Amino acid sequence: MRTLENLDRLCIHTITTKPWPIETAVERYAAAGVAGITVWSDALDGRDPAKIGRLIRDAGLSTVSLCRGGFFPSAEKERREEAIRANERMIDDAAALGAPLIVLVCGAEPRIGLAESRRQIVDGLARILPRAEEAGVRLAVEPLHPLYADTRSAVNTMESANTICEELNHPALGVAVDIYHVWWDPHLKDEIMRTGRGERIFAFHTCDWKYPLVDPLNDRGLMGEGCAPIREIRGWCEESGFTGMHEVEIFSDRYWSMNQDEYLKKIVAAYREYA
Amino acid sequence: MRTLENLDRLCIHTITTKPWPIETAVERYAAAGVAGITVWSDALDGRDPAKIGRLIRDAGLSTVSLCRGGFFPSAEKERREEAIRANERMIDDAAALGAPLIVLVCGAEPRIGLAESRRQIVDGLARILPRAEEAGVRLAVEPLHPLYADTRSAVNTMESANTICEELNHPALGVAVDIYHVWWDPHLKDEIMRTGRGERIFAFHTCDWKYPLVDPLNDRGLMGEGCAPIREIRGWCEESGFTGMHEVEIFSDRYWSMNQDEYLKKIVAAYREYA
Repeated sequence: MRTLENLDRLCIHTITTKPWPIETAVERYAAAGVAGITVWSDALDGRDPAKIGRLIRDAGLSTVSLCRGGFFPSAEKERREEAIRANERMIDDAAALGAPLIVLVCGAEPRIGLAESRRQIVDGLARILPRAEEAGVRLAVEPLHPLYADTRSAVNTMESANTICEELNHPALGVAVDIYHVWWDPHLKDEIMRTGRGERIFAFHTCDWKYPLVDPLNDRGLMGEGCAPIREIRGWCEESGFTGMHEVEIFSDRYWSMNQDEYLKKIVAAYREYA
Repeated sequence: MRTLENLDRLCIHTITTKPWPIETAVERYAAAGVAGITVWSDALDGRDPAKIGRLIRDAGLSTVSLCRGGFFPSAEKERREEAIRANERMIDDAAALGAPLIVLVCGAEPRIGLAESRRQIVDGLARILPRAEEAGVRLAVEPLHPLYADTRSAVNTMESANTICEELNHPALGVAVDIYHVWWDPHLKDEIMRTGRGERIFAFHTCDWKYPLVDPLNDRGLMGEGCAPIREIRGWCEESGFTGMHEVEIFSDRYWSMNQDEYLKKIVAAYREYA
């Protein structure tokens, strides 16, 4: 496996350095030699996506994706229709921003159960795929850790994500592999290989699984701080043909509360040593 | 599916009412009409297991199992040998207590990874099974939620537990189905059926998955408080032939801090309405 001396595949999610407004994130990422940025919707609040897209390009960064669409299931039809419209608006935002990809947290509705939530996810994807294709934006289903099966996603394994992709069989639909969510899965390697020479892996998110976990949401670790087999999983993705960016996506109250310039240095160092 | 008007299959884990010493738990469970008790090792601290066993029988309760053995993997051989000895002592305790079953939290060693942890689990089980058989004590592998794959168990799905049972193929080895750990799994029904007419399901633990989860360890819900499909999963177990107790196992800082007599009433009411 290639080592990561240079940063030409390092991307950072704006949520990782949440205290920074996106303008600051773009400037600091570029100054640090980071190659790509994934933009979270909240970072666009009150801003023109096209203008932010130009800012990113002018700084020499690639826009890797827009996070995060999805949240399709609901017990009420009207809410499901609202979700479709929200996803369509996000496709327009991605196109304006110049993001080639939207990452989807597919949603789960505890009142209807996981099986019905999964059906509604497939229906929702089928509804928005034509608009995505027309806009030149791809969609990645991100399986979320089973910890989030209550309200965030009824797609909790790579196998489920692959099955949805095969069912819908659309060139604009693929998967996002996020180490935090999938590291524990004994079928992970097989399911990464099942994606077919990397053609279906649209995104690769990295971080680490810290232990003991003190918060179910915002206690992710920097690479090297936990027990996820980060390099092994990256190796499988590359073996399957994936050639995209390595995106650092970390929700962490601990890191959000520290000086973000110092944190960015730690991210780059951890990326070089452990990613 | 039969409803649960009476309590002849209700068992409670001593950990559920942790503030009570076991003598109090036995007295109050029996007074409430509860049929069974699962004893956690900490409840035996400083006590003679045989004497506690008599206390339980005299109160008219069944001892369903002793919780919890396991924790086989380690990076050091000597620690693995210590784990074998600890499990053998627990088998002796179970026999003295009159518990026909030990539930196993199999362990995980983050320094060696999940695949090697799983191999060491199989090795450890193979080592202790003869002693268990000799003592007339059965062993149940309990798959733990992937949330606990870091340090508690490298067996995180019913499929993994079934595979281990098939590999070792020993009549004293089976599985424990715990709703908290497995409710999210899209293959759960198939894997419960795979156990073969209930012959391999040695225990069934119930509670609920609350959301939002505020603590990864001690925020389990009473039946009816969350989104786990409790009755559906119980139905699958019964459909597969399981005829054992329904064991209420709840770790909850919230409930441990309340009056335990009031809590016991809530458990019985929740069991009747939602289990």
